[in-house]
Amino acid sequence: MKIIKTADELEKELPGLKRPLGFVPTMGYLHDGHLSLVRKAREDNQAVAVSIFANPTQFAPDEDLESYPRDIERDLKLLRGEGADLVWIPTVEIMYPEGFQTWVEVEGLSKILEGSYRPTHFKGVTTVVAKLFNAVRPDKAYFGQKDAQQAVVITQMARDLNYQIEITICPIVREPDGVAMSSRNTYLGEKERAAARCLSRGLFLAREAYQKGERLSERLRKIVKDEVEREELAELQYVSCADPATLLELEDEVSSCLISLAVFVGKTRLIDNILLGE
Amino acid sequence: MKIIKTADELEKELPGLKRPLGFVPTMGYLHDGHLSLVRKAREDNQAVAVSIFANPTQFAPDEDLESYPRDIERDLKLLRGEGADLVWIPTVEIMYPEGFQTWVEVEGLSKILEGSYRPTHFKGVTTVVAKLFNAVRPDKAYFGQKDAQQAVVITQMARDLNYQIEITICPIVREPDGVAMSSRNTYLGEKERAAARCLSRGLFLAREAYQKGERLSERLRKIVKDEVEREELAELQYVSCADPATLLELEDEVSSCLISLAVFVGKTRLIDNILLGE
Repeated sequence: MKIIKTADELEKELPGLKRPLGFVPTMGYLHDGHLSLVRKAREDNQAVAVSIFANPTQFAPDEDLESYPRDIERDLKLLRGEGADLVWIPTVEIMYPEGFQTWVEVEGLSKILEGSYRPTHFKGVTTVVAKLFNAVRPDKAYFGQKDAQQAVVITQMARDLNYQIEITICPIVREPDGVAMSSRNTYLGEKERAAARCLSRGLFLAREAYQKGERLSERLRKIVKDEVEREELAELQYVSCADPATLLELEDEVSSCLISLAVFVGKTRLIDNILLGE
Repeated sequence: MKIIKTADELEKELPGLKRPLGFVPTMGYLHDGHLSLVRKAREDNQAVAVSIFANPTQFAPDEDLESYPRDIERDLKLLRGEGADLVWIPTVEIMYPEGFQTWVEVEGLSKILEGSYRPTHFKGVTTVVAKLFNAVRPDKAYFGQKDAQQAVVITQMARDLNYQIEITICPIVREPDGVAMSSRNTYLGEKERAAARCLSRGLFLAREAYQKGERLSERLRKIVKDEVEREELAELQYVSCADPATLLELEDEVSSCLISLAVFVGKTRLIDNILLGE
């Protein structure tokens, strides 16, 4: 497994990688959700490249960039175990040198849902993903459904900007108690970790109702909302029942939908979602 | 010479092109300035791809998109003569399908000089060039110095977004009387065409002064300004004496500089520039 730092080193190593080349961009502190992406990339491709970069431009000044968990040695051990061929670990100075001023933005989709609470987040995401795509030039790239809106935003960017890269979205990987895997779960104290179960509990209750025939978007939202609000340590930021492709909020009867929510458990902001229907 | 329309056709043809692949993006109505780019690409590469696309997003609503001159048959004949291997002629619907919403912007450089008079222009340019780069994936790309600020903006975009594409800027090609070649010269009536000579006359006078030792930016600007203002049919929009790399306006003594100007001759907006010093 090659471990590289600069874009020049990457450029030197790329011709040695077999094609098709699968690519998994991460912010590090890998968990089984990330590793499921690497496994899928391994299955679909002849070689797998992974990037580890906690991208500062997708964090607002009041967010958790400084405290974002890091453990590169552990990450590398896990990636070796999954048979990754190349790991790119650039620094902030490499990715955003002095004078940097070019931004990629998916204008509509970036402003709603998560974007309405984190107005600069997706601009940071799409800019860094465009940079990573241009530098790595993979055939396929893998993202997790956990960040449901990010998946839609990046798929839209790839289409709009003519990236000839196949975007694959892999299912959420959950802990045994239902909590979606996230590097940010590490922030949670014991009681908070227990409280964090309310997100998936609410989503599973909504799924159950949907399976029993419930199709009214306001009722599906209310099921999730009620379950979160029963949890004392949790504070709901939003719950959405939206069109899975456009992310536009659905009213009245729905066929398929994406139910997503953001919840503060203590100071930790958690998100989760579930797709219902086809 | 392959002539194609859709991105899918392009994708099918790309593997058949030798490497390195040179790329010349154009808006069509080709003149010897464009052809000099194709010749340079031909010299530097094993294959040459050209795009012809009058990009609507770089025109403001009050600009000349509708009247922009077109003659595809003539363009193709000229490109055949230069030995281009592939010409991509997408439609507006192909480049900007319904739901398109992703933009690439070089924030600082796009707002000054031309950008202060054409605030959405460079956002359109960088977005379409990113799309073209992603679709064609050339090794080298060629742009003309005639659009001096565009050259700086695209070079910055390529660096910031990690495009592994070498950007080459080719010198301005001028008519025998000094007027910079431009598809827009076709708009000029006979008297206007004669008046259009004031741009290059002013620039050449500034160069003469520079060669004789003049280094004061305000005097260099004034030489150009005075020459344009002597021409009755011409109306100066701006004349700039700027740092060639940052495009920041220079005060007092200069070493090297880019003198650029925009002038209305009748309803036709013309630009020109000259690099002085190293």
